[in-house]
This record gives sequence, C-alpha cells and structure tokens, in this order.
Amino acid sequence: MTPEEFRRHGHALVEWVAEYLESVEQYPVGSQVQPGEIRAMLPEHPPTEPEPFEAVIADLDRVVVPGLTHWQHPSFFAYFPANINHASILAELVTAGIGVQGMSWVTSPACTEIETLMMDWMQELLGLPERFRSTSANGGGVIQGSASEATLTSILAARWRATGGAVNHVGDTTKLIAYATSQAHSSIEKGLRIAGIGTEQTRIVPHDGAFAMRADELRRMVEADIAAGLVPFWVCANRGTTSSMAMDPVGPIAEVARAHGMWVHVDAAMSGIAALAPELRWVHDGVELADSYCTNPHKWMGVNFDCDLFYTADRHALLGALSILPEYLRSAAAESGAVIDYRDWQIPLGRRFRSLKLWFTIRTGGVADAIDMIRRHVTLTQELAAWVAADPRFEIVAPHPLNLLCLRLRDGDPDANAATDAMIQRANASGASLFTRTVLDGTVACRVSIGARSTERRHVEDGWALLRKLS
Amino acid sequence: MTPEEFRRHGHALVEWVAEYLESVEQYPVGSQVQPGEIRAMLPEHPPTEPEPFEAVIADLDRVVVPGLTHWQHPSFFAYFPANINHASILAELVTAGIGVQGMSWVTSPACTEIETLMMDWMQELLGLPERFRSTSANGGGVIQGSASEATLTSILAARWRATGGAVNHVGDTTKLIAYATSQAHSSIEKGLRIAGIGTEQTRIVPHDGAFAMRADELRRMVEADIAAGLVPFWVCANRGTTSSMAMDPVGPIAEVARAHGMWVHVDAAMSGIAALAPELRWVHDGVELADSYCTNPHKWMGVNFDCDLFYTADRHALLGALSILPEYLRSAAAESGAVIDYRDWQIPLGRRFRSLKLWFTIRTGGVADAIDMIRRHVTLTQELAAWVAADPRFEIVAPHPLNLLCLRLRDGDPDANAATDAMIQRANASGASLFTRTVLDGTVACRVSIGARSTERRHVEDGWALLRKLS
Repeated sequence: MTPEEFRRHGHALVEWVAEYLESVEQYPVGSQVQPGEIRAMLPEHPPTEPEPFEAVIADLDRVVVPGLTHWQHPSFFAYFPANINHASILAELVTAGIGVQGMSWVTSPACTEIETLMMDWMQELLGLPERFRSTSANGGGVIQGSASEATLTSILAARWRATGGAVNHVGDTTKLIAYATSQAHSSIEKGLRIAGIGTEQTRIVPHDGAFAMRADELRRMVEADIAAGLVPFWVCANRGTTSSMAMDPVGPIAEVARAHGMWVHVDAAMSGIAALAPELRWVHDGVELADSYCTNPHKWMGVNFDCDLFYTADRHALLGALSILPEYLRSAAAESGAVIDYRDWQIPLGRRFRSLKLWFTIRTGGVADAIDMIRRHVTLTQELAAWVAADPRFEIVAPHPLNLLCLRLRDGDPDANAATDAMIQRANASGASLFTRTVLDGTVACRVSIGARSTERRHVEDGWALLRKLS
Repeated sequence: MTPEEFRRHGHALVEWVAEYLESVEQYPVGSQVQPGEIRAMLPEHPPTEPEPFEAVIADLDRVVVPGLTHWQHPSFFAYFPANINHASILAELVTAGIGVQGMSWVTSPACTEIETLMMDWMQELLGLPERFRSTSANGGGVIQGSASEATLTSILAARWRATGGAVNHVGDTTKLIAYATSQAHSSIEKGLRIAGIGTEQTRIVPHDGAFAMRADELRRMVEADIAAGLVPFWVCANRGTTSSMAMDPVGPIAEVARAHGMWVHVDAAMSGIAALAPELRWVHDGVELADSYCTNPHKWMGVNFDCDLFYTADRHALLGALSILPEYLRSAAAESGAVIDYRDWQIPLGRRFRSLKLWFTIRTGGVADAIDMIRRHVTLTQELAAWVAADPRFEIVAPHPLNLLCLRLRDGDPDANAATDAMIQRANASGASLFTRTVLDGTVACRVSIGARSTERRHVEDGWALLRKLS
C-alpha cells in the first residue's frame, strides 16, 4: 500500500468508524450467528493474490459486523461496559501509526514520561492517596493491559516481599496463603494459580448479606493459618465485585493484614472510575491503607481497551519481583536511576504507547464527559431499581450503589432460578437488549449493567419492558 | 467530541500519520532528550478546561516526536525490529473504533472465528506442522500480546501436565526443573520466575561455539536431575536468540525431552517469520516435535505490535492450566463445546480484536511484501558481513544466517570491549543510526539488526561508515 492509498483508505475508514458508532443502535445487541458461521463466510486458505482494499472494507459490513456483539450499543447491559470515546479511538490511530516500543525509557522516552504523568494526573482526578504518586518515596503507577495482569503483578510483588525475595531463587510457594471472598473475580484465582498458589492455599473468606468480606472472619482465618505454621501473604479487597458490585471494607481488612505483614490489593476494576465524581469518591474509602490498587478507564471512562491503571505503594517489592536486566537491555539512563523502565512493572516485555489515550481524553474534556456519563448511569440504575421494586413479580437481590442492578423473578412456579434463566435467554435471543446472568449464593440473578456511553433513559425503559414481557 | 469533530480530526490524523512515516528519516533515530525533559514540557496537573483538539495534534509534534526513538526509521538497527505496514495501522483504527471484547466466543463471535482462521492461515504460510492447526485433534493457535506471554503460557501448560494438574490445587513447584541456554531471552527467566520456578530450578545448558544449545549436555543434566529425584518438565529451544540469533537444534533437544516426558517450547519470536520465504523455512527444522511454538508478526512481518502467534500441540494441557469458569462467563455456546473461548488460552481475561491486523495485511498483499522485505534484509546483512570481514580492524563474532550481524573491534589498545562500547555510544549519540550492544561469553558486541521496512542499501552503508568513522 502506498502512502497515498493509505490516506485514501484511512479517510474511508474514519468515515466507516464514525458511521458505525452513529448507527450501532440498529443492530441486534448480541450477535445472532451460530458457531462456525463467520469462518464459513471466508476462504479456508490464505489468498495468493492481493485483493483491493475496498473488498476488505466491504467485508467489514458483510462478515465482521454480523459477527459482533455490540459493546457500544446503548442497550448493552451485559458483563461490564467497555465504553469508548472518540478521542481515544484517535489516540489508538496515532499509537499504531508511530509504532514505537515503550519497554524501557530509552526505547522512547515520551512513551514512559507521558505514561508516568498520566498516572499522576489520574491519581489526582480519582482522589487516590499520594503514596501512589510517582513522586512519592516508594510508590508509583503503570498502565497495564487488564485488571487480570494488575492482580497477578500484585500477587508477585506480595510473594516476593513475603519470602524476602527468596521465591526468585528457590521458587517455593507452598506455605503462602491468600484470601478473598467467593465474589472475587475469576482473575484472582487465575493469578494465584499462575503464581503457584493453588486452591488449597486460597481461603474463601465468608461474606455478609451484602456480599462483602467479613473482616472478623478474615482475622480468624489468618490467625488459624499462622498457628498452623503457614504464611498469610495477600488479600484481595474488592471495591465493586463482578457479580453484584459488592464493596469489601478495605479499612478493617487492611487492619488485619497489616498486623501480619500481608499485602492488601484493592480490585476496583469497574467501580474505581466512579471517583471522578466527588460525591462518589467513597468507593476509595480505605484505599490509603492498600499496598496496590487497580481500576479500568477502559470500562467506565471511555478510554479504549486496553487501559488498566495499576498503582502500588511498594515499588521496591514490585521491582524485586519482576526486574531482570539482560545485557541487550542495559542503558546508561536506567543505570543512573533517573528513569523508569516500565518493562519491570508488568508481565510482558513489550508495550504499546497506551498513555496517549488518556492524554487525548483528559485534555479534550473527557473527564467532564465521563463524570456526566457516570452520574447518568447511576441515576438510571436507581430509577430502574424503583421500577423493579414496584413490580411484585420481581425482586432485587443485592445492594446497587452505582450502575449495576441484580434482579430476579420471585419464587413461584416454575422455580425462580429456572424462570429467571429463561427470561434472560429469551431477552438476549431477541437482540433488543443484552444481559448476563450470575449466581449469588445459589440464587440466579439477571445483571443489568448500565454503562454504555450512548445509553439513555429510553434504552433502560425498553430493557425493563422487555424483561417484564418475557417473564 | 461530536461525530463531525471525530471525522475532521480523524482525517487530520490520517494525514499526520502518513506524513510521519514518509518523513521519519529526517529525525535522529534515538531520542536525544534527557530524563525528565518530556514531562517538564507538560502541565504537572490535569487541565480543568477542555483544550481544542488542534492543540493536542500540535503537541504531537512539539512534545511527542522529539521524545520518540523512531522504530520505523530506516537507520534503526537496534534491538529487534517492530516494523509496521499501512494496512495494519488501518486495522488498528477499526479495532479501536468497534470497541468489542473477544474474551469469549459469545462476546463477539467474529473476533474469535477470524482469529482462529488467521492462525490457521499463518500455519500454512509459515509451513508449520498440521498438529498446530485448530482443526487438528489436540492443537491450535491464539494471538498473544507478546512472546513473553506466550512463553509463560507454555510454562504453565507444561507445569500442569508434569504435575497431572495437581499444581492447580497444591501449588507445589519445588521439584520442577526447566532448561535453557544462557542465550535465551530474559522473558524465559521471568516467565519461569512468575510460575514459581526459581533460578535454582533452572538449568543453564552449555552452548556450542555458535551459541546454540548442546543437546548432549541437556541429556546429561536431565538425567542427573532425574537421578536426584527432581522432575525435568520444560525446555526452551530458541530459533534465533536475541543476542546473536543463535539456532538451537530442536530435533536433538526434542529427542531428549520426549524420552522424559518434558515439554518442548520453541521460541522463534524474531526469526520464525522468515519461513514466509520458502528458502528460509529451515528456521522451522524440528518444530514438528515441539509442544508449543511462538513467533511475532509484530517484529518482521509489518503487523503492528501487539501480535504474537502462539501455537500448541496440546490444547488439553493449556486449558487445564488456564481455564476457570465463573457463573458470569458461562454461555450455551461454550458449554456445547462448539466454540473456542480464547480467555482460557492466555493470561488476561480481556482481549482486543487483534486478528484484523493479520486479516488486512494478508488480504492486501502483505505476505508478498513481507517476503520481499525479509529477502532484502537478509541480503543486506550478508553484504554488510562481507564489508566487515574485509576490514581488519573489525571481526564478526557469531553466525549471521538471517538479518542480525554481531560485530566488534578486534583486540588492541584500548581493550576491544571498551572500544566497542565507546563506538556504539558515539554512534547512537550522533542520532544518525541506532545500535544495541550485547555481551557474548564476555565479549562485547555491536548488534546490527536490519529490519525496518524502509531500510535500503544506503542506510546500511551509512551505518557501517558511521561505525568505521567512530572506531
């Protein structure tokens, strides 16, 4: 492709993307294709002759769009949002177009320094503790690809600290014990497993009626493990669980953890961004006691996936866990200690220039837009809750302080679990809205996650009408 | 930003990217800024009022470009290439613009099915074994973010298989032993460390004069470990090491490994892509005996970072190691077994629609372009080797079958290590070319990695003239 062709096709795709986002509401929210249907529309073997680019663009409409579940659809109420704003799409174009690597400061200083500054800007915008700032004595932040990676990074730093670094040499993790509730995200179990902490070394701490961790039970379990000669090393406090957006009490959890030298990780992947709005800053209660923390602008701030903010108050442990310096990566800048090499703050070596998305978004009014959007979503969720509460056939099964409402059909005939499942399946098959199910202490629930940028009151009204009609 | 503003700024940025790539040769290859200089050009605190988008574009030129080390510069001879083609930049725009998640088939079927097809297309184009194909009995491929993640994934699958799955429960990794040469990439040690395999459980297998693993030494070490009651479980065979592009003999290594039930991972991150050219397909000699394999289109095929191809012949072990299924991720499609959920093939949960880059590239003639480019780079490297060999002040310190040449000053006064280091530093400070140093068995060498898309003979001539002038 010549530069002139790139310009021509680039302009066409800018129009294509703009139009897709303007018209996404016309599509079924969840893709209606059957397994294998997309692949069957394409050649089984690679082409031997080049095709015109126009054919590729045509196949976006013919093949790709029907195979999408439209996360930007205003009636997308499934999973958690992955909403995107226009500025961050443009930033991704620039990131791709300059094609630099940010593994070390020296491999592109702007990539590192703008990322550090964006992490400090976000620390201010979210009201996070000063000890997470790059200018603090032992803290700092980094953009990770996902909360899964942030969690694993946190576990590795904690593992290093708990073993005095010995784990890097002897690899013995058999005495280490981790703690979370049954409501913690699957990435917690996955991260622990990867780090050599098996399910037998993971304690499921009981939760209260609001699905939040009971700190008294945590204390009891930690003390029992210590008495048994084990080493409690890491606890995950969720601020906004995936199933129901439950809020673990960070303060009381941290009190137990600190008494025993444990690492406290706060997983606020979904909800932490709410703190952009001052009145919602309570989501960060107790975070000043955490050793690490993460939240995802790629969920609720309009910044394209992938963009997870990971902060730690113990950079020393992080680097102890992850730093390896081969000859071909040495640099005078790094050895002077004057710069950050983010490769030592994450699992992979290579890294994209992801901070441009934050930079573009924040500078062009994206924070005010995000606050408006968050407030709108929270208000809509509370309105929906009132409608559900007024319908005797339904019940709400968990607190709903932000933008997730878990509802279900009341017990009756057929049994409420099966009836709720059937309702969700029929709603999703309609293509008009999309929901996800979960199970809370054996109770099937329909999660209504209100988080798309374009969701208005009418979409929530329509989604609720659909559920009522199908119930 | 309104859709109309998005269109306007999008068109401006398409022009900006086209112009950047056309004019990148004008810049110093390595950024000339000092630590802190980029950050100091920006406000320490986030803006409270929105700025016009034009100000952001202006800052790309004022702040970002001077802070870049230009990986797309034709005189970039450092590290390994991360070259990009126009089609894959456009694909990244679409990926960002549709903003879908590909963690499960059901979360966007096209994202999964096009990825599977692209992995199968690449299996054909690279001449990889049929047992890596998605349609094989127990194999398949996935796009990972980086070779680091692919390596870790391989280690975790091997760890699962060697312990019969017990590691997921008891987390005991203390008897497991891994093998690699001192030339293996730093991500090998990092991946092992993350998985609870410390340096005391990692054997550095001696290499021969060409920096390739000695299979006889591997056999001796494995047998000694078994005799000591330990469990050899994983060996990394490099096809193209980072320091010198050494080629470990996969066949003899796999023979040792198979005799003892070990997992063979082939790391061909840089060199595997060479197999697009039929006459270079020898890079895959022995790969038919491997349990897993990776190579990076984001290095030498023009497909934007991040795009690592990871294949395994043992999908069962991979899923055993990484699959976790919480209620909120269940789907009828997944439970029917008819679809792939790629979240279980990788470390993170979330994933971008990365296969579009391969699709756009392959369909629009990108394979033929890549073959031409690879052949040009290999030819230029051999020409450079002839020039170096003809200069009595220099010597070549490793085999150079592809596009990396390691050279150094001959012993003299001052000592050759210091003189070679000084030469590299002065060359890089000039901004005219960029090289990386390495150390091979105590010998400092200048790595000349020829891999940018726009590199022509004159750039290699100029780089060589620069080294001679500064030596």
